[in-house]
Amino acid sequence: MATNQQVKLLGFVGSPIVARAELALKLKGVEYEYIQESSLTNKSDLLLKSNPVYKRLPVLLHNDKPVCESLLIVEYVDETWTGHPILPSDPYHKALSRFWSSFIEDRVWPAVNKAAWNPNKQEREKGAEEAREALEILDKGLKVNDKFFNGDSVGLLDIAALVIFYWIPIIQEACEFNAYSGDQYQNLEKRGQVVLNDPVVKGVLPPRDVLLSFFRARFQSIIDSK
Amino acid sequence: MATNQQVKLLGFVGSPIVARAELALKLKGVEYEYIQESSLTNKSDLLLKSNPVYKRLPVLLHNDKPVCESLLIVEYVDETWTGHPILPSDPYHKALSRFWSSFIEDRVWPAVNKAAWNPNKQEREKGAEEAREALEILDKGLKVNDKFFNGDSVGLLDIAALVIFYWIPIIQEACEFNAYSGDQYQNLEKRGQVVLNDPVVKGVLPPRDVLLSFFRARFQSIIDSK
Repeated sequence: MATNQQVKLLGFVGSPIVARAELALKLKGVEYEYIQESSLTNKSDLLLKSNPVYKRLPVLLHNDKPVCESLLIVEYVDETWTGHPILPSDPYHKALSRFWSSFIEDRVWPAVNKAAWNPNKQEREKGAEEAREALEILDKGLKVNDKFFNGDSVGLLDIAALVIFYWIPIIQEACEFNAYSGDQYQNLEKRGQVVLNDPVVKGVLPPRDVLLSFFRARFQSIIDSK
Repeated sequence: MATNQQVKLLGFVGSPIVARAELALKLKGVEYEYIQESSLTNKSDLLLKSNPVYKRLPVLLHNDKPVCESLLIVEYVDETWTGHPILPSDPYHKALSRFWSSFIEDRVWPAVNKAAWNPNKQEREKGAEEAREALEILDKGLKVNDKFFNGDSVGLLDIAALVIFYWIPIIQEACEFNAYSGDQYQNLEKRGQVVLNDPVVKGVLPPRDVLLSFFRARFQSIIDSK
């Protein structure tokens, strides 16, 4: 990377969505400055200015130009820096990777958040059910066809699925529901084991016990506020 | 295109979402067979088999391999066939085109559908308000910076925004609400005039009066069923 390039990432430690952008940058070996938002509720002027539409993390600032939305950041990083290819080169495999990544974003992740953080217990149960349904569709869709992924190396779909491989097991333990188990979703589990063993992936994962304590405290505050 | 290639598009005449895929294929000069779904409610076996996850149109079948989701089809077409470039070449402009295209998909279009087809009048009014808010954000976001589009030629964001340039004015007339007017959203209006004058775009637009009658009848059936 040219030395006159400036790369900053607005993030929040522990967020699986921010971790996607971090992982993409690390896979490419891009040096960047991590700017931690001090709070998820009291948003910084820099975040509001950089992502006025959704006002959410992560935001990549490349020479002060903001790129928003985690999956779009991953594609931007792949297209901007050479080295480790993140998207498959074949257009059909590319389309499948994008399709399933968006499915995780639109169907799996919102259901998990509902299962974990909705103040209403019935809604939480409904969320867990929706998450199981979505995970089953995903697991069946992936089948044994690992071309949906990026061959042996970590790719877009792996990055999108990190929420499943690493975060969901911790969140469901903290928030007392059951959406994901390796026995049920064997294609996901198999791929998850490969991805979580990757040294670059390991470098972006926050410690399990820290996340568990954080999510437990957040869950308890929801229960207490009822 | 090699003669041994087979391209089919599962669609439904009059759908702005299907028109995106059609337009991408026509911009590239790809010959394809259009397979019309006979009904939007009674889905064909081919559709259910090709898009088991969302069961919705359009689906592109390229040598029998299905590609789903309109914006992903547009990217697939751009990456598969040479000729007219649909996405900007610069990664930053590419990211912005994807960002605003997804914004239209996630924020503008669902609000317009709510404003048009929700059986509850208050919900319809809420939908129209949400559509106006989203269109205002989009119009401001686009400003005078036409690099978000694809320069002079028709690109991804134009294809995504065709629902605004052509369909929304017809739908709001049929369904008696007001979300879009050229006076209010001058950046959109300016770009819309360029895009709607493009000869290839003209070739995929269904006649205005046919759409208006179709949407009027659909709206009346919703009013009558109350």
